[in-house]
Amino acid sequence: MDNSKIDNFRKKLHTIIYEADTPAGKFFDLVLLILIVISVIAVMLESVASIKIKHGQLLAIIEWVVTVFFTLEYIARIFAVNKPWKYIFSFYGIVDFLATVPKYIGLLFPGSGVLISIRAIRLLRVFRILKLVHFVGASNQLVLALKKSRAKIAVFLFSVLVLCIILGTIMYLIEGPEHGFTSIPVSIYWTIVTLTTVGFGDITPGTSLGQFISVIIMILGYGIIAVPTGLVTAELIGDKKVNLNTQVCPNCSADKHRDDARYCYNCGYHLND
Amino acid sequence: MDNSKIDNFRKKLHTIIYEADTPAGKFFDLVLLILIVISVIAVMLESVASIKIKHGQLLAIIEWVVTVFFTLEYIARIFAVNKPWKYIFSFYGIVDFLATVPKYIGLLFPGSGVLISIRAIRLLRVFRILKLVHFVGASNQLVLALKKSRAKIAVFLFSVLVLCIILGTIMYLIEGPEHGFTSIPVSIYWTIVTLTTVGFGDITPGTSLGQFISVIIMILGYGIIAVPTGLVTAELIGDKKVNLNTQVCPNCSADKHRDDARYCYNCGYHLND
Amino acid sequence: MDNSKIDNFRKKLHTIIYEADTPAGKFFDLVLLILIVISVIAVMLESVASIKIKHGQLLAIIEWVVTVFFTLEYIARIFAVNKPWKYIFSFYGIVDFLATVPKYIGLLFPGSGVLISIRAIRLLRVFRILKLVHFVGASNQLVLALKKSRAKIAVFLFSVLVLCIILGTIMYLIEGPEHGFTSIPVSIYWTIVTLTTVGFGDITPGTSLGQFISVIIMILGYGIIAVPTGLVTAELIGDKKVNLNTQVCPNCSADKHRDDARYCYNCGYHLND
Amino acid sequence: MDNSKIDNFRKKLHTIIYEADTPAGKFFDLVLLILIVISVIAVMLESVASIKIKHGQLLAIIEWVVTVFFTLEYIARIFAVNKPWKYIFSFYGIVDFLATVPKYIGLLFPGSGVLISIRAIRLLRVFRILKLVHFVGASNQLVLALKKSRAKIAVFLFSVLVLCIILGTIMYLIEGPEHGFTSIPVSIYWTIVTLTTVGFGDITPGTSLGQFISVIIMILGYGIIAVPTGLVTAELIGDKKVNLNTQVCPNCSADKHRDDARYCYNCGYHLND
Repeated sequence: MDNSKIDNFRKKLHTIIYEADTPAGKFFDLVLLILIVISVIAVMLESVASIKIKHGQLLAIIEWVVTVFFTLEYIARIFAVNKPWKYIFSFYGIVDFLATVPKYIGLLFPGSGVLISIRAIRLLRVFRILKLVHFVGASNQLVLALKKSRAKIAVFLFSVLVLCIILGTIMYLIEGPEHGFTSIPVSIYWTIVTLTTVGFGDITPGTSLGQFISVIIMILGYGIIAVPTGLVTAELIGDKKVNLNTQVCPNCSADKHRDDARYCYNCGYHLND
Repeated sequence: MDNSKIDNFRKKLHTIIYEADTPAGKFFDLVLLILIVISVIAVMLESVASIKIKHGQLLAIIEWVVTVFFTLEYIARIFAVNKPWKYIFSFYGIVDFLATVPKYIGLLFPGSGVLISIRAIRLLRVFRILKLVHFVGASNQLVLALKKSRAKIAVFLFSVLVLCIILGTIMYLIEGPEHGFTSIPVSIYWTIVTLTTVGFGDITPGTSLGQFISVIIMILGYGIIAVPTGLVTAELIGDKKVNLNTQVCPNCSADKHRDDARYCYNCGYHLND
Repeated sequence: MDNSKIDNFRKKLHTIIYEADTPAGKFFDLVLLILIVISVIAVMLESVASIKIKHGQLLAIIEWVVTVFFTLEYIARIFAVNKPWKYIFSFYGIVDFLATVPKYIGLLFPGSGVLISIRAIRLLRVFRILKLVHFVGASNQLVLALKKSRAKIAVFLFSVLVLCIILGTIMYLIEGPEHGFTSIPVSIYWTIVTLTTVGFGDITPGTSLGQFISVIIMILGYGIIAVPTGLVTAELIGDKKVNLNTQVCPNCSADKHRDDARYCYNCGYHLND
Repeated sequence: MDNSKIDNFRKKLHTIIYEADTPAGKFFDLVLLILIVISVIAVMLESVASIKIKHGQLLAIIEWVVTVFFTLEYIARIFAVNKPWKYIFSFYGIVDFLATVPKYIGLLFPGSGVLISIRAIRLLRVFRILKLVHFVGASNQLVLALKKSRAKIAVFLFSVLVLCIILGTIMYLIEGPEHGFTSIPVSIYWTIVTLTTVGFGDITPGTSLGQFISVIIMILGYGIIAVPTGLVTAELIGDKKVNLNTQVCPNCSADKHRDDARYCYNCGYHLND
């Protein structure tokens, strides 16, 4: 009897923590979301020297409230889930753990500043908010379009990277350390800064030839931005099109039939589904 | 009799001020537009120290002429409209009020420099010009396309923001205050500057690891600009496609009729729904 | 007899100079193009102090050869054309004149450095090269797409400008002269530099609030670049679509008929062409 | 007999080195790819002063291993190919040669630092990796789309270049050497930096008129980026549209057949051309 009571409680807890369909589940998600946002803002503000001096006390209290809530939540998550170890070693499990523990270790060994820095990992919990966003229908189409054009975007990025390595090396040979191009990796960094049209200006070409190559890099970057844009756009529009499949007619080897085709458009042969 | 005269005058005034169909209405809109532009330019030029010293007298006169006209216009607007309070507390009502009052307060209390700064709010009146632009048909399609893809753009911007918070924190941990990354908010500011390919160069990474992460941020920014572009483009193209269906006219075999077509566009035959 | 000979010569000259169909005409265009490019490069190089000291003699000779050729060409153009005054006061006529005269005036009054600067106007002659490019079919579609989306792009640019004026004024009020935002026009300049993602870094926000507004400006700029891109893309793709016209059915007032429609799709009424 | 053995060996070697279908060929390609990547990274790291001091010994060993392997590979390539001279004077043949020789010359004449710099040419070998990428189907469509819109992109880039020359000269006349616009080529360099929205900030306009022209250049750059994007997108979408025509099957009234269809895809009825 007692066991079934616990089981019942676990089921209820599971519904509240892991699902978002019931009012209680929605309320829990909302509270969690607000606490994550508060904790993120607190971590941010604590890093600002002037605010830490003024409102350090308040931030410390918020910190502790959030940490205690996150600890309770972490324990509840382990308790409510069927396979606790699977959760503990999942991405979210580790993030949830790292969001609480450094605070306690910092209590035991007061000098460990590095560990307190790790607390910033808590920021990764904002991904949980993104999970909620996931339910917004709008994001599905976006993610799909990005996934579909993933292969092409990868090929594009790889080509750009090779281009940047070659152009970066050329710039290193032309400009050299006296104009800030201290090494090939730094030159490649500069090339990417220029090609992506970011243009910090911390390193700039000093020679005429260097400026000429820079101009080519810039125009390249200005032009090839069209490629990822074109890929994603084509994918987003293509979603609404008549789908042509890769089925091949067994009779005449014609391909690119409409998805709903029952006869070959070329020879009239009946296609198998 | 007198009352109906006033009523008549109010109606005429309403037509002139709030509508743009009559020649008088168009003339009023034009004069208002020119005065807003002049007042905007005057506010701008007054902020330039060298011009203020040279042409301060002229700017002060323009200032007063415009203020008096705006005051008369404000009173006329209140008088001509049926529900004055609704106008007074509307967005444009408050802007119109703030476009006139600070000048008079500045007269009473000569030292109130801050209040004179508020006069710059007058710039918001340029939105009235945009209202005129609204009548240009071209803008409708644009606004519609932006509205339709609003949800997706919001999801996109939110994801980018979360990404920037995480990457900014990582950069803060790597670079630290000694390279200008004085706090997490400043690091996030830098991350957004880099991701959007603005690249001021007021803060730049100093360590190799920092430069490596920077390169990833830049390429990310260079790549994901494709997303809002793709969304708006897909929407703009989708708008143009009046849905043409595949229904075929039984009389003349013409197809690609509009979805809501009831008669064949080619032979006038009545189509079955 | 003599007169008809001159007339014949003028006709031949006209064919050579103003047309590009005959071999002689093509040869003339090619020579002109090369001389314009040489003169452009010479003007550029002369502005480089180190090159002027070293190769000043050579540049001066090139300068004179080009000037003499351009002078002869200018005289020939006036002689060959039927309505000389129309040519002389046309855009190209004035540019051609300004491409030769400053050199001679500089000869008469040796000290007139400003006039020699005007010689740089010669660069405008490169537009003649663009005229040749005009014959490349590829450019037609481009120009058409840009022309068609002109109205929308104008509305877009105007909205962006108003936005920049308002945001620039806000930044001026927040940051003020102590952080480099010396006047409203300078602030607007900075806002456009930021919104267009150029980001020189000559002026950067110093306050937290200023950096927050900057971030909003950047994300705005990063997002709304989608608009002109979407407009041009939609136009380029739309060129290939079924054209729906704005004709209105006299019977039922339905519009957006297919361009080749002979009957109203809504009521079957016969449409007049 | 011996000769046929050698011939056999050559054939096998050819299969391994020049083809990627057999397991041995795939393994060779993989090893080559890894060695190229290692050699590229080694060249990069050697240019970093601090790493060269620390790990110079290790880098030298890697250098020699890679050089020896590349030398053996080069000899094998010459031996295995039917027309050795064609390979030797091909692009890849010259790159492969320059990837090995400078190391040996550096051994004979120890002081020749320049020659060792040429070793960086080895980076061009990464193009071999791209050749492998070529087999990934995704890149074909990309390359095709870029090729098809090549003519239009060239016209676009040429127009942008002419614009930059004119605007750069105007900026030189306005700003002059006292604000960093030391010569026309430098001004053109600055104009391209601004137009492509890179914006280094090494040179920035100092006069009001200069800032005004800058703003125009930036907005131009912000706007015309739409052109290459639109071109590539239109091409990428155009590729997907197999032209479906409006022909209607006389038997089953199905429409949207492929342009080259001879039979109805729905019922197999023979379509009239």
